[in-house]
Amino acid sequence: MNFKLLIQYDGTRYDGWQRQGNTDNTIQGKIEEVLSKMTGEPVELHGAGRTDAGVHASGQIANVHLTKWHGDTEEIRSYLNQYLPEDIGILDVESVPERFHSRLSAKGKRYCYRIGIGDRKNVFERRQIYPLGGTLDREAMEQAAQYLTGEHDFQGFCANKRMKKSTVRYIWSITIEESADELRITYCGNGFLYNMIRILTGTLIEVGQGKRSPQSISEIFEKKDRTLAGYTAPARGLTLEEVLYEDSV
Amino acid sequence: MNFKLLIQYDGTRYDGWQRQGNTDNTIQGKIEEVLSKMTGEPVELHGAGRTDAGVHASGQIANVHLTKWHGDTEEIRSYLNQYLPEDIGILDVESVPERFHSRLSAKGKRYCYRIGIGDRKNVFERRQIYPLGGTLDREAMEQAAQYLTGEHDFQGFCANKRMKKSTVRYIWSITIEESADELRITYCGNGFLYNMIRILTGTLIEVGQGKRSPQSISEIFEKKDRTLAGYTAPARGLTLEEVLYEDSV
Repeated sequence: MNFKLLIQYDGTRYDGWQRQGNTDNTIQGKIEEVLSKMTGEPVELHGAGRTDAGVHASGQIANVHLTKWHGDTEEIRSYLNQYLPEDIGILDVESVPERFHSRLSAKGKRYCYRIGIGDRKNVFERRQIYPLGGTLDREAMEQAAQYLTGEHDFQGFCANKRMKKSTVRYIWSITIEESADELRITYCGNGFLYNMIRILTGTLIEVGQGKRSPQSISEIFEKKDRTLAGYTAPARGLTLEEVLYEDSV
Repeated sequence: MNFKLLIQYDGTRYDGWQRQGNTDNTIQGKIEEVLSKMTGEPVELHGAGRTDAGVHASGQIANVHLTKWHGDTEEIRSYLNQYLPEDIGILDVESVPERFHSRLSAKGKRYCYRIGIGDRKNVFERRQIYPLGGTLDREAMEQAAQYLTGEHDFQGFCANKRMKKSTVRYIWSITIEESADELRITYCGNGFLYNMIRILTGTLIEVGQGKRSPQSISEIFEKKDRTLAGYTAPARGLTLEEVLYEDSV
């Protein structure tokens, strides 16, 4: 039986999604541990987005094949929520066709990056917000976002220098919402490279601060040079909000 | 000059509002420390609600008299937010008449207690929610709330055994809102005794769990006996939302 899990986590305390062997402090590792305890068999959980250390998820998707398990989906959800730490929650479990794979079947993802502006604080949501402060020129950032949307080779926005696989991705949309204390950048695309959203965000922030022009994006695409792009914005502001599948579009 | 501060804090890390001398880890202490640094004089901050260790505030009010300070209110807010820790934020500072006293001038307060029900988790707001789980009979709790509203001697709902002052308080309203994962109890009243809201909440929870009847409230008022009331619900679920003054009613 193949089960699809809808997962939320506050990534602050963890070394990211992906299991790292014996000294494990990852989201994947924590969930696999509880699932193994429940089923009495070793399990492998496949996550749709391999979020970095400190990155959060409000809508991560993973799937797991359980051969020895005969309970229903509600039992899985309830068991996991009982034994997982407080900062990892399972919102939903459903039975899916054997061929479903959370990452390979995904058509795209939506990420949100929250930036604190001004000098007011959001004390209750501070772990999900990058406290940058000051002001940002949203119009200039939106101009820069126009350069970024569409299909491009994002090698210059990737932290992994020697990517053997294709670094071409399609960003469907980048929307920027502004309130008195916060600026939210929402990215929708068919896939994102290692650290890509954090580098895109750092670059957009530099545009918003007047440190670079919106047009400077073109050169990063041309030269494919990471050093021409902006800094890597901190993990804490980033949340994986939704994984998109054929039937959810 | 007398200044009124609107304050938010995540109380998780602190020993409550009220300063406790030298080994200080209180909200009042932290804010006074920064104000003293700013003005170069010792200051005393008067808080409207002396929240317990672990209790939060989204709308705490405090006032402070500054004799040597000649800057404006925006400078105070900005300075405080810069030097206070991330879990204490100043939303607003305004200049008020000399006679204004945050606690003595207050006409009432609104507190909210959030209880997690079911087995879904709220990973992002977990520090503001008491993860009780299970189900609660909201109708029975609302019946019990009817007994609690109005003017009563709340001695049986007070943790301080030998209160010399009056233990009569007026609760204007208790409203209970329910969603799939959460039950919120909002208390409005002219004042609350030590631990009173947490004991009221523990008592309402016992009613909701069918462990006591709504009518059992009457006996607690008659006997004024703390041992007849419910348990003290944990601090983490409680937030001081608003302090009410004559002009805000």
